[in-house]
Amino acid sequence: MQLNGVTIDNTYAEAFPTWIARVIITAVTLEWAKKAATEATGFATSAIGCPCEAGIECELSPDETPDGRPGVSILICAAKKKIKEQLIERIGECVITSATTAVFDGLPQAAEKVPVKLHFFGDGYEYKKEVGGRQVWAIPIMSGEYIGEEEFGIVKGVAGGNFFVMGENQMAALMGAQAASDAIAGVKGVITSFPGGIVASGSKVGSNKYKFIPASTNEKYCPTLKDKVPDSKIPPGVNAAFEIVIDGLDEKVVAEAMAKGIRAAVTVPGVKFISAGNFGGNLGPYKIELHKIL
Amino acid sequence: MQLNGVTIDNTYAEAFPTWIARVIITAVTLEWAKKAATEATGFATSAIGCPCEAGIECELSPDETPDGRPGVSILICAAKKKIKEQLIERIGECVITSATTAVFDGLPQAAEKVPVKLHFFGDGYEYKKEVGGRQVWAIPIMSGEYIGEEEFGIVKGVAGGNFFVMGENQMAALMGAQAASDAIAGVKGVITSFPGGIVASGSKVGSNKYKFIPASTNEKYCPTLKDKVPDSKIPPGVNAAFEIVIDGLDEKVVAEAMAKGIRAAVTVPGVKFISAGNFGGNLGPYKIELHKIL
Amino acid sequence: MQLNGVTIDNTYAEAFPTWIARVIITAVTLEWAKKAATEATGFATSAIGCPCEAGIECELSPDETPDGRPGVSILICAAKKKIKEQLIERIGECVITSATTAVFDGLPQAAEKVPVKLHFFGDGYEYKKEVGGRQVWAIPIMSGEYIGEEEFGIVKGVAGGNFFVMGENQMAALMGAQAASDAIAGVKGVITSFPGGIVASGSKVGSNKYKFIPASTNEKYCPTLKDKVPDSKIPPGVNAAFEIVIDGLDEKVVAEAMAKGIRAAVTVPGVKFISAGNFGGNLGPYKIELHKIL
Amino acid sequence: MQLNGVTIDNTYAEAFPTWIARVIITAVTLEWAKKAATEATGFATSAIGCPCEAGIECELSPDETPDGRPGVSILICAAKKKIKEQLIERIGECVITSATTAVFDGLPQAAEKVPVKLHFFGDGYEYKKEVGGRQVWAIPIMSGEYIGEEEFGIVKGVAGGNFFVMGENQMAALMGAQAASDAIAGVKGVITSFPGGIVASGSKVGSNKYKFIPASTNEKYCPTLKDKVPDSKIPPGVNAAFEIVIDGLDEKVVAEAMAKGIRAAVTVPGVKFISAGNFGGNLGPYKIELHKIL
Repeated sequence: MQLNGVTIDNTYAEAFPTWIARVIITAVTLEWAKKAATEATGFATSAIGCPCEAGIECELSPDETPDGRPGVSILICAAKKKIKEQLIERIGECVITSATTAVFDGLPQAAEKVPVKLHFFGDGYEYKKEVGGRQVWAIPIMSGEYIGEEEFGIVKGVAGGNFFVMGENQMAALMGAQAASDAIAGVKGVITSFPGGIVASGSKVGSNKYKFIPASTNEKYCPTLKDKVPDSKIPPGVNAAFEIVIDGLDEKVVAEAMAKGIRAAVTVPGVKFISAGNFGGNLGPYKIELHKIL
Repeated sequence: MQLNGVTIDNTYAEAFPTWIARVIITAVTLEWAKKAATEATGFATSAIGCPCEAGIECELSPDETPDGRPGVSILICAAKKKIKEQLIERIGECVITSATTAVFDGLPQAAEKVPVKLHFFGDGYEYKKEVGGRQVWAIPIMSGEYIGEEEFGIVKGVAGGNFFVMGENQMAALMGAQAASDAIAGVKGVITSFPGGIVASGSKVGSNKYKFIPASTNEKYCPTLKDKVPDSKIPPGVNAAFEIVIDGLDEKVVAEAMAKGIRAAVTVPGVKFISAGNFGGNLGPYKIELHKIL
Repeated sequence: MQLNGVTIDNTYAEAFPTWIARVIITAVTLEWAKKAATEATGFATSAIGCPCEAGIECELSPDETPDGRPGVSILICAAKKKIKEQLIERIGECVITSATTAVFDGLPQAAEKVPVKLHFFGDGYEYKKEVGGRQVWAIPIMSGEYIGEEEFGIVKGVAGGNFFVMGENQMAALMGAQAASDAIAGVKGVITSFPGGIVASGSKVGSNKYKFIPASTNEKYCPTLKDKVPDSKIPPGVNAAFEIVIDGLDEKVVAEAMAKGIRAAVTVPGVKFISAGNFGGNLGPYKIELHKIL
Repeated sequence: MQLNGVTIDNTYAEAFPTWIARVIITAVTLEWAKKAATEATGFATSAIGCPCEAGIECELSPDETPDGRPGVSILICAAKKKIKEQLIERIGECVITSATTAVFDGLPQAAEKVPVKLHFFGDGYEYKKEVGGRQVWAIPIMSGEYIGEEEFGIVKGVAGGNFFVMGENQMAALMGAQAASDAIAGVKGVITSFPGGIVASGSKVGSNKYKFIPASTNEKYCPTLKDKVPDSKIPPGVNAAFEIVIDGLDEKVVAEAMAKGIRAAVTVPGVKFISAGNFGGNLGPYKIELHKIL
């Protein structure tokens, strides 16, 4: 299959279940909501080495937030047993400490709820109130009062939706991946947790040589090794590959984000080939086929 | 003492030792170095609840970096036993995964060294080379090659240098704190690890009511409680306080950053009072007196 | 009328007709589209002293643009006889010169059209082609090819929709104005042409003392003059005022933007009073009443 | 000559005299100084079609500005007879209108001075005062007071220092140009006036086909025309070229910026050739030879 002259590999992305919470962070201005959201979603690229995967889903205008202030929506993705701790730590350390923030549950319809009891920080001076129809705690702090909901809906979402952008050289592949990341930023319900939304160093599970590490470079996709390893997956004329990894609320929105990202990537001159990562279909329950979604 | 009409409290900031590593991150453009640095220093506001404290120290022009590319310098601050793990995880998950990055030790003169062996990721395809006089590993990755030093100097620095910016209302105090943060951004050797460089919710050790939490709101500095708690430290006419917390390579540079920050804060209309946080001088070995440094 | 405890003055904004073109700028990434748009809309705050009024309307995701690339929509507002020249100069000097850009008409349904013949730059090497259903010129340039439509729809829109955000001090008023500007950024069909969307120095027509200048400070709204001029319009307790000025495609969308901006401004602590600017109703045909739109 | 494997053409940039003013813009925070500076330097890429050439020179920390606030330095470059008008209009429309700004002369040592009488805007309510050793006017405005110097030093500087970054494809050339632009941003005394510091469509004087236009595409440097025009200057293997154009206070600093930019550009993979633009040496008095400055 060809799209704008770029070959789309006949393959699929293999994705996995994850639990996801959506946190609405509001602040006096959009800039302050963004600062809190950026800190709260840092050090959260991959569940392999980070405590969770997290990212900014979208900006919210004041008429989309419970308190009528500018906001940012973030998604936090983790195993069920870890998500509560991550919500407590990331809201507690990165959002309550950030100027003028308030926090609201972004999945109020979710059947499953996680308690996030941060009001203890108020040391007894905290009190309950209602903001925008939500039951929240008001906690006296040095800069005034912090407002926060303490129950967050969580849903079973999809982690690891992905595709590879391959180019005739590194800069073409990078800008193709950036165009894809820009396109995906406009899709509600998904995040790309890696820096700038792009993975420079896709990995395989385990290692052939060093048995003590959980993941290592995916040598079959390394352009500098294409003549050194058997079964290189790097097509002729390709000299660099970046991966886009997408987590989202359900399979449909992850597939939509993949499709929009790929369509944007192929507009970039020098992008030559689009593929996707899977493990032979044995590990993840979701198989998102590139030819089907485009 | 008065500065530009603002009262400077006759008190001191009480600060603590910490171990610090400086990581030079370079990339094809400054923007990409910043993206990696932002991710690598996220979720790192306070050692109380985060795995470390970290922040961006400064941008580096290409003639200041080992490989002649644009760069960003970050500081990672942690207890000695935790700093190696944090370097491995944050470089491994947030920088190697980021497009076009390379990593160099920013404290090559330090007597103490920490090994950060990330070349195992190369699964045997990695090799040694020299870049800008540094011994580095080149690791084949999907987008090309990652270049990284694997030994980082660490020094015993100072954490928790601080001052409070108090204003007649919340916005005046916030903008005063922002002006301070802008001024401190120009000082090499320090970081401010909180979102935007500003703390909205300064805390005290422990809690009077909830014995199971390690820190709680500092009620004596809460403006909304000034008539409800005995011994409120909120001066008349003050209705909001933000804290600036500074970590740095030594006491001198932390004091310099505090002085520059305070001088900037007092230029902002509505800022009324500058103070600093301490624990009576019993906990931290560093006492940085406001009147002395100004 | 009170909104969130803030008094809304019983007055109206007096606005004026203007001709408006909408230019869709696309580029390889969103960042590059923004750089071109920022340059093209600079030096364009007020028609009194600038060649036109211009600003960024919104970002466009790849599926909203004719060429499937990330984009930015800008509005250029001027008198009918000046708009063609401004389109030619701003596209010619600021967009064609910007990396990887293409330009499309953002008002293809408009009855009135303005020719913007930039293909002469191609010196005969240019040629016609079709992109996304649009007839465009492809012009060979040093970096490749520039793609551009050469006919732009223009509509009779509304300039000078406005309101004043007044606060108990300067920082409260500024952050109130910023929250308003953030809210308005989410409204399609409008721009705020001043830096950051905010006017620090609203003016009156002419001058009482210096007859040779077209506009001068609006002393009745100057807080530092409230005890020095008769008929000061600064209410008790107000010490600073910022103005938000909005241009838009029609009166309805300007009124909507005003309403959203005011609702956001009143969420900011220290904002005390909202008013609007008019000239007694004698100059502009549009009278947008604050109490009606809220 | 080769630099990092990239051929440096044995040629020179031909540059021209220009008059330059340096305007120091300060504000309550760096962000607000930047907003004013961005607006004031917009629509100012090339003196051919814009009223002037202008750009941001550098950010200033509070201890580098007359009023102890964060600041930005901009350069405005124009013919001597036009520079006064441009200072008046750009400061008057874009800086005085911007929140919390003050303006100071950035070339107080210059022998030649230009009066910029903006205090008439005060309509008689303005008054003189001293700030940081400078004689300034304080003008009452709606948001408080605007502070501004009214005499600006101007010097005879150099416009049109330049070099070309050529790459094996468009994205490699663009990122090479971006790395150059990042490097030049660190050099005090210069600006790059085009969007993002990069020119996508370098031009020649006049046109062969359309006699009525002042400048047209430089077909000898157009990659898509390399087989269609005689004497193409596009070397084998090159498929895109971007130009960096530099204005600066003197020839030495322009040469330094060119050297730093070229050194950064050649670190980018896919960059193949560096050249520079001249008119045979007949038009401009400055000839900056690439081999000499590197």
